[in-house]
Formats: sequence, C-alpha cells, structure tokens
Amino acid sequence: MEASIGMATIKAAILGFGTVGQGIYHILNEKRDELRDKLGIELEVAKILVRDTTRERVPGTAHLLTDSIDDVLSVKGIQVVFEAIVNEEPAYSYLKKAVEHKCHVVTANKVMFAKRGLELQELAKQNGVFVGYEATTAGGVPVIKTMKNILLVNDVTRIQGILNGTSNYILTKMRAEGWTFDEALQEAQNLGYAEADPYNDISGQDAFKKLMILSALAFGEQPDWADVEVIGIDGITSEQVKEATEQGLRYRHVAEVERLSDGKIIAKVGPMVVDKEHPLYPIDDVFNAVTMETNYIGTLTLVGPGAGMYPTASVMVEDYAEIIGKRAGFVVTI
Amino acid sequence: MEASIGMATIKAAILGFGTVGQGIYHILNEKRDELRDKLGIELEVAKILVRDTTRERVPGTAHLLTDSIDDVLSVKGIQVVFEAIVNEEPAYSYLKKAVEHKCHVVTANKVMFAKRGLELQELAKQNGVFVGYEATTAGGVPVIKTMKNILLVNDVTRIQGILNGTSNYILTKMRAEGWTFDEALQEAQNLGYAEADPYNDISGQDAFKKLMILSALAFGEQPDWADVEVIGIDGITSEQVKEATEQGLRYRHVAEVERLSDGKIIAKVGPMVVDKEHPLYPIDDVFNAVTMETNYIGTLTLVGPGAGMYPTASVMVEDYAEIIGKRAGFVVTI
Repeated sequence: MEASIGMATIKAAILGFGTVGQGIYHILNEKRDELRDKLGIELEVAKILVRDTTRERVPGTAHLLTDSIDDVLSVKGIQVVFEAIVNEEPAYSYLKKAVEHKCHVVTANKVMFAKRGLELQELAKQNGVFVGYEATTAGGVPVIKTMKNILLVNDVTRIQGILNGTSNYILTKMRAEGWTFDEALQEAQNLGYAEADPYNDISGQDAFKKLMILSALAFGEQPDWADVEVIGIDGITSEQVKEATEQGLRYRHVAEVERLSDGKIIAKVGPMVVDKEHPLYPIDDVFNAVTMETNYIGTLTLVGPGAGMYPTASVMVEDYAEIIGKRAGFVVTI
Repeated sequence: MEASIGMATIKAAILGFGTVGQGIYHILNEKRDELRDKLGIELEVAKILVRDTTRERVPGTAHLLTDSIDDVLSVKGIQVVFEAIVNEEPAYSYLKKAVEHKCHVVTANKVMFAKRGLELQELAKQNGVFVGYEATTAGGVPVIKTMKNILLVNDVTRIQGILNGTSNYILTKMRAEGWTFDEALQEAQNLGYAEADPYNDISGQDAFKKLMILSALAFGEQPDWADVEVIGIDGITSEQVKEATEQGLRYRHVAEVERLSDGKIIAKVGPMVVDKEHPLYPIDDVFNAVTMETNYIGTLTLVGPGAGMYPTASVMVEDYAEIIGKRAGFVVTI
C-alpha cells in the first residue's frame, strides 16, 4: 500500500440525522482508529444535512449542521455521502447531485431506491462512482452483498422473505403474549420499531419496496408494481392467531418474487401460515429472513435483525469500507 | 474498463479432479460467456493435476492432465490455481509453490487450511496474491465472505453452527425415518455425502477443522487444538433419538467457538439437543448453518447446503471472480 494513498483523509457527509444517521456518526467515531488501521484512511464527517439546523441532536455536531445540499457538496474533497432520509424526495435529487459531483453514495432509503435505484446506479456508473444500498433491505442482514456475489456465478430464480421487522414483531407478540393487534402495534411504536404513522409497515408497502429492490438486483428488472398483490397484517385478528397457534402453526408476513421460465416476473406480499418444518417458523421478533433459490448453490437463507440504529448503520459503514477498498484497488483480507 | 485489461486471457489450473474439481471445470465451461461478459476476462483451464494421469474422468480433458506441480506452474501466464485435494500434503506444498510463483489460489481443503491457513495467507500477502477459501467451510454457504465483510466494522464474539452435512443428514434420517445410525451412514455413503472412510465426518473432526478456520478468521487465532473437546455423533443411539423426538426435541451436531472478555478463546464440538424455538431446529438433511454474534449487527445466521459438487465448486468460482475483480481494481456491480 502506498503511503500517499494509505493516509489520505476522506471527507464524508451524512444526509438525515435520525436514528440511522446518528448510528453512522457513532460507528464512524468509535471505529475511527480501526478503519484507519484496516483501510489506511482517515475519515472525517464534514457535514450533516438536517431540516432544522437549530436542533443539535448529538453533542458537538452543531457546527456540522446544514440544510443545503449545495453547502454539503461545496466541501473541498468531499468523497462519500451517507443518506438516511425517508421518502423519495428530496433524497433522490440530493443523491443525483452528489453522484454528478463524483461522490460515492451509501443509502438506507428503500422508498427512493425501490423506485429510482436502477436509474441512480446507471448515473453512478456514468460518473465512475459507487452506490451502496445494503441498508435499504433487511436491515443488518447483508442480503444485497451476498446476492451480488452469488450472481457472479449463479442465477437466482426465486426470493422469499420476512422483510418487515415491525410486522414480524407484531405477529410474534400476538402469538406469544396473546396481545391484540393494537396492543402489539402500540408496543412496537413505544420501542421505536414502528413509525408514528405505521401505515407503510403494517400495510405491506415497506416489505413490497424491499422486494422490488431485490427483484431489480436478482433479475435486472421489477414486475409492474400495479400487478403485485400487497396485503398487510392489519387484517389478522387475535382469533386467527390463536387458532393457528393451537394447530402448531404460525403467521408470517412473507414477500416473494420469482422469475418464471418464460422470463415473466411475478411477486406477491402477504400473510402466510407456516408449520414448524418451514424455515421461517422460528424467525421471531424484529428479525428478517431472506431465502434465495439459485441454480448451483441451491437454497441459501440469511437471518438477522431487520431494523435498529446499529445494524442498519453498520451495514452502511461496511458499504463505505468496501467502496474505499475498491477505489484503492484492494480489499483488506483478514 | 480498458479493452486491454478487459479481454485478457487468464490461465487456470485445477489440482485434484474428484467431485469438487470436476464441478469447477463444469461451471467454468458453462459460465465462460457470462464470466467474460461480467468480468471482461477469457478463462482457460490449462492444466489439471491428478495422481493417475491415465484415467480421463471428464471427456476431452486427457490432454490437460498432469501429475506434476512443476508442470502446472510452467504454463506460461498461469494466474490462478483451484485446489480440491484432500489432506494437508501434498496440497500445502503445492499451494506454497503456486503462491511463490505469484499465482492466486482458491482452496476447498479444510484439513490443510485449518492447520496452515494463516501461514498460507501471510505468504500470499508477501507475494501480492490472494487466497480464496470460502469452500473450506460450510460448502455453498458464503460464511467466509460474509464474516470478512462484517469484520470491517463489527467484532465477532461467538460463532455457533452445524458444520458437517453428513452428520446432520444421519441425525435427520435417524429421527425422520427411524433408521439406525448404521443404516443412515450407509445411505449417506450411497449418496456420496460421506467418504468410504467416514471417520472425519462422524467423529466431529471435520466440523472441528472448519471451526478452527472460522476462529482464525474471526479472532485472528485458534485455541490450542488439544484443549478443544470434540465429540462426534457415533455415540448417539436410536433410543436417544426416539426419546428426544417424543419430547419435541432434536439432536444437532454443533460446533462453537467464543472469545471471552479476557481474550481467551474456547471451543467445543459435539451433539446438542434443541427445542423448536432454537434456530438450528429446522436445519435438516445436509444443510449447514452458521450463527455469528457481533457487536453492532447483533446475531446473523446463514443457512445453506453444506456439501455437494455444485455448491462447493460454485463458491470457488465466486472466489475467483472476486479476485479477478479486485485485481482489475473493480468489482462489477449489478
């Protein structure tokens, strides 16, 4: 490793400073020495973009706050942008600007990425930069990286998974604690799993967006969104859960997408009842699971925490570490 | 991508032409066009090293056979060596020579790698080449790659897994079919899962070797081998399996390694009885599963086929694709 590359300082910005954005900030600080040792790079968080710059959420960050993407991109030597904003806009416009400014981007924004991901990746390719999006799907479970690697040699034919931690948490508590849907939802909100407006989680829309991201990766395209049946968990009653439990069965909220032999892609999202032999049977609480069927390897399943500050932020920093490794022409192996 | 790099021909050799070696050959042939399109590289299998060069195992390969490693390394422009031999020697000596010849190596040899892996990796580093060893552990399950990536940001504190497909197959059949140990072993041998001499599988030694490879990766070191209790499945009776089943429990053969807060590494390998809430409960047949506990992400589990020609060969070709991507300073993202 050349010393000049080795000890370069890389400037980063964080867009959005909620749970995930703060998690990134904490991990980058905690891991500063180690990232320097492992990747030979000094990392500096140079700007944090928020809507309200008068509110310092983490002590010592007030001087980094801005509400202007132009301000962020005017930082001399800015090279990577972490984005943890909700919704398509202004996130997409910000990342487009960043990519055109030759910045690598790492995003956790599934709503934006499901719709604009292929476009953003194409733009990044044209600009010679990378897009990390591991955090958009299944939280801390490295499904994107694993699938990219598998796709180097295998074809993926079918993907099935529990992709929404909040729904799985609610279904788990209805079964294990005998709570009603409303009680379980309330507790999920208390614990910070569900948003104040839980619509996206419980309607299946969140799982649907993640499934579309996986479809784009596995098959290079998505089914027509209007053709996909999306059913949430909000119609499941305590009685139904009780009845399933008495029969040794469990409700799971499952998203699946498949490419048929004629090339057509079909997808659906909805509740499913599984028995104890099913791989999704023991996946409780906020855990996510993704199963992919491939031609050479066979069936591969990944299970891990589907939400949370540190799992999500961690995979974003891993995306960053991977990008840095690629740019230097090496990845540190241990 | 530069055209000159883009269309280079890379010459490869395969050492050992049993199940896995043949799997590599088939995949490289089947994927030739795709690997060229995705990685911009033309791949040629230039030599196949076997003990008996008079026996052509795959039609059209007779002219490639040799029993001399010097013959392999004398091929002009040889760049990568796939190794699928059993036992430490002559495999280690061959790979040492290959690495000193500036060849990348990709190995499936767990016995060799458990003992000499750290040494081989150090030698590779000195020679500026890479060692791929995904196939040494858990067959088609990409546990090495996933852990390497996680370790860029996380610490791993504990690893637990089903690492021997044959043992898991035998335990599954004793429970589900009511077979005796001997009947299940016989069928595992008929299906090609177990070797003619099944000692390594059923004694726990195979799982132990894989566990030591994971320990070296996660912690940079292994416990003293003499301190690790290794118990196989050969002492489990039909009666014990029946009794467990009646109680809703299942036997699993589990390998685990942990780093304590004082830095000491402890490991053990042996049978375990698990209930239906345990993540290893539904892992039947030749499937492997590996659970890793990390500080930021939490607990991550990978499940997939632990043996077989194509799963194992596939991850070796993925190792190769990854190495090629690194050497060219990029990895193709999809």
